[in-house]
Amino acid sequence: MNEINVCLSPALIPLYNVEDYIVVVIDIFRASSSICYGIENGAEAIIPVSRVEECAAYGEKGLNYLLAAERDGKVVDGFDFGNSPFSYTAEKVAGKTIVLTTTNGTHALHLSIKAKKIVIGSFLNLTALCTWLQSQDENILLVCAGWKNNFNLEDTLFAGAVVEQLKEFSFKLDDAAIAANDLYQLGKHDINQYLKKTSHRERLEKLGIERDIEFCLQIDITTAIPVLDGDKLVKLG
Amino acid sequence: MNEINVCLSPALIPLYNVEDYIVVVIDIFRASSSICYGIENGAEAIIPVSRVEECAAYGEKGLNYLLAAERDGKVVDGFDFGNSPFSYTAEKVAGKTIVLTTTNGTHALHLSIKAKKIVIGSFLNLTALCTWLQSQDENILLVCAGWKNNFNLEDTLFAGAVVEQLKEFSFKLDDAAIAANDLYQLGKHDINQYLKKTSHRERLEKLGIERDIEFCLQIDITTAIPVLDGDKLVKLG
Repeated sequence: MNEINVCLSPALIPLYNVEDYIVVVIDIFRASSSICYGIENGAEAIIPVSRVEECAAYGEKGLNYLLAAERDGKVVDGFDFGNSPFSYTAEKVAGKTIVLTTTNGTHALHLSIKAKKIVIGSFLNLTALCTWLQSQDENILLVCAGWKNNFNLEDTLFAGAVVEQLKEFSFKLDDAAIAANDLYQLGKHDINQYLKKTSHRERLEKLGIERDIEFCLQIDITTAIPVLDGDKLVKLG
Repeated sequence: MNEINVCLSPALIPLYNVEDYIVVVIDIFRASSSICYGIENGAEAIIPVSRVEECAAYGEKGLNYLLAAERDGKVVDGFDFGNSPFSYTAEKVAGKTIVLTTTNGTHALHLSIKAKKIVIGSFLNLTALCTWLQSQDENILLVCAGWKNNFNLEDTLFAGAVVEQLKEFSFKLDDAAIAANDLYQLGKHDINQYLKKTSHRERLEKLGIERDIEFCLQIDITTAIPVLDGDKLVKLG
């Protein structure tokens, strides 16, 4: 029987043989939501890099990259944009390649690099993602990017939403998958309201990105599944 | 405002400055329950050690130690007992010093060694523990021992039970504390039933320790709080 395991922090990735899993990287506020939106909107590729300097180096290559860098929730000085989904509209990204570094999401992605496949999940592409996952007949590891390796509720709740769609297909769930799904039951009727009590939310509100948050909690407004191909995230075809 | 943070796995302990916290080590099935029960029943001290060899070495000192060693849920060959609470009755442990090594609990304890204080929590001493914690005016870190660094539901649920008793006293809760408390709301009316769906429970059932599990889920049958004093757990006085 295939497994669905939920990895509640990137710091726990070493507990898993990621080679045995399709990994879904989850960073709801906001990297994975923006990546899904950007790929849906025709971005040719998104290159996730770990460090701001790597991101900047692409600019020096003189090619037509869009450079996106976020640290601690803010756009890094000197960059085109960060990880607000409103920077990933068709008008801005269609046909473009974006180089992206973020506080949490790209970190989780690089730690999962040996996985069978790495895809990006968000509420935006939830059902498309689950339909594809269900068709793969593989173990699934849902990796919550968290906040600087700390557990966070929004990523966990999304993991629970994935479990919700897949659990009828007789996967074996670990305790974290059970917990994530139970938390999703508590929050699903009004996810925005449920998340208002969380710590990260408070931090994000201080950053003035309430509009981004509402955007990232929309369910099934996209169908593209970003998948890592070499060093680039592209549309799964 | 003081904080209550929940550390969902020993692998996440490095994220915290444990010096700033009173740490509660939680290993419900079964080490922390048995430690609480043994100290309640008059054990003079319990010495937690990391390795089976260290535990055995105490026997060679020729003193009157009880040696307890558990790995993967079973008593290690050649030892007096493991971590079943039924080995920690007054008849067996009163006036004795026990040297204990377990798969998860002693590991979590040693990683927390720089904390302001380290105490042991279980459902057995829940209210006594919470009353004492509330009186301390310190930050509290609830460390779930988990299973080989993996998240587990029983330790998390207990953390949620502690949050439940303390949250009215205006602590700041991190996301993990919120999640643990929410899960406790789901499970509190029949904790045994709620935990039946978990992975660790299945493993424990295979070990034939159903009776131990029921014992460990009793609430408030003890009042002693084991506290680390040097290298020994003794009764907080």
